[in-house]
Amino acid sequence: MNQQQLFEQIQKKRSFLCVGLDTDIQKIPQHLLDTSDPMFSFNKEIIDATAEFTVAYKPNLAFYESQGSAGIVSLEKTVSYVKSKYPNIFIIADAKRGDIGNTSNLYARAFFGKQKYDAVTVAPYMGEDSVKPFMTYPEKWVILLALTSNQGAYDFQFIENKENGEKLFETVLKTSQKWGTEENLMYVVGATKAEKLKEIREIVPNHFLLVPGVGAQGGSLQEVAHNGLNRKCGLLVNSSRGIIYASSDVDFADQAKAAAKKVQQEMEVLLAEANLI
Amino acid sequence: MNQQQLFEQIQKKRSFLCVGLDTDIQKIPQHLLDTSDPMFSFNKEIIDATAEFTVAYKPNLAFYESQGSAGIVSLEKTVSYVKSKYPNIFIIADAKRGDIGNTSNLYARAFFGKQKYDAVTVAPYMGEDSVKPFMTYPEKWVILLALTSNQGAYDFQFIENKENGEKLFETVLKTSQKWGTEENLMYVVGATKAEKLKEIREIVPNHFLLVPGVGAQGGSLQEVAHNGLNRKCGLLVNSSRGIIYASSDVDFADQAKAAAKKVQQEMEVLLAEANLI
Repeated sequence: MNQQQLFEQIQKKRSFLCVGLDTDIQKIPQHLLDTSDPMFSFNKEIIDATAEFTVAYKPNLAFYESQGSAGIVSLEKTVSYVKSKYPNIFIIADAKRGDIGNTSNLYARAFFGKQKYDAVTVAPYMGEDSVKPFMTYPEKWVILLALTSNQGAYDFQFIENKENGEKLFETVLKTSQKWGTEENLMYVVGATKAEKLKEIREIVPNHFLLVPGVGAQGGSLQEVAHNGLNRKCGLLVNSSRGIIYASSDVDFADQAKAAAKKVQQEMEVLLAEANLI
Repeated sequence: MNQQQLFEQIQKKRSFLCVGLDTDIQKIPQHLLDTSDPMFSFNKEIIDATAEFTVAYKPNLAFYESQGSAGIVSLEKTVSYVKSKYPNIFIIADAKRGDIGNTSNLYARAFFGKQKYDAVTVAPYMGEDSVKPFMTYPEKWVILLALTSNQGAYDFQFIENKENGEKLFETVLKTSQKWGTEENLMYVVGATKAEKLKEIREIVPNHFLLVPGVGAQGGSLQEVAHNGLNRKCGLLVNSSRGIIYASSDVDFADQAKAAAKKVQQEMEVLLAEANLI
């Protein structure tokens, strides 16, 4: 999916919501544990309930890997399900990968060759050759960690460079723009650091940003939108726990739908205010 | 496995070799492709051929993930095989993970709870809460990326901090020592940056270092040993391609054995010179 197509989906659905499929076997409703594949059963119902309100799904691979190969099967089924039933929904492998070039090539083959993700999150520490292999697939995206939503972001990401005073996350934003374009590169910026979005927009005015941390982690959707929207929206705001665990009872899918709809309605207002719909 | 036990294995085998099980389905000998699980068949033969010369195995997960859930099954079988037949060999998941605390918990559960790895490689960009969950399992290890072997290491790892002049990889070494101890924390330092090992040893005199990049990537074992050995050896030097692909023919296991033995013999000399055996 290219940038224009993603923006068209946002306009059509009046939403820039990404639903995080952080499916924890220990948190899904009890009655699903009797099915042959509880994680997939849960995801399928969540997807069908929320697809009309969301433009993207983002499974975090940790949740599936914690179940070994069985979890990977559940994940593969989930991705196939979305791509066959909702082909216009963008799918992000939240994997935070990154390795020497030879090895990143294989990760890219895993996510974009064998599986049909649209994007994968990548950690920047190992630099250019760890990131570029993910950019060699047409209409596929790297989403590079820039400023993350967690407390640990303050350990290294704000270190100032002696040469030019740039903070590390700013250097990541600037340097990585030499590796890709606004058509194959997005950035992760945590909603909990929304006050930084204005400065970040000065560095990357046109790139899409994936913004986690609204909801359970405490970030504000309003602040994210006011500081982060650009002329093609340019934002995918992720919510995981607030939607998929809206209820842990038999009505979990209905409650997830209601929670997704509520966020979509807030987003519709924000898109309209910004004259994007 | 604790630090003393690892050192005892090194002394017993007169080796600090780690064999990288970077098993690429496209590179393994043709005749194995007819077996029911070619990646596992290859690994099993490589392991049996090299176990007497090596103290650690390090599968890089990209190679297995590139084959989807079937690859994960091959990997699970490989780890189980090592742990049942060679329980004193240290196994490293070369995964380069790292996520917000809530999610890193799940990765830790995957590698140390469900599976029986001794250690996992972790990327530092997201800071303390992304790393510490891996340190909550007794006798399990984080191996944190500090100075990597690839060209991309120069993009960010050498940035100098305005406040104190420290390079980023030095700050990673210093800051992370507040999170763990020499009993649960090691560091990745590429053999291609062996000239930096002396400085690194001043910062982390007692920690083990995992050193990739000898062989195919061009690093020198002699230089790594001279600059990096400490009073408990403190080094695991990895070789992947140079050993497991020593031959692509039916004699691949014999050739891998010969290649591993050659490295072990060089290591024995270096250990003796350092009065460690």
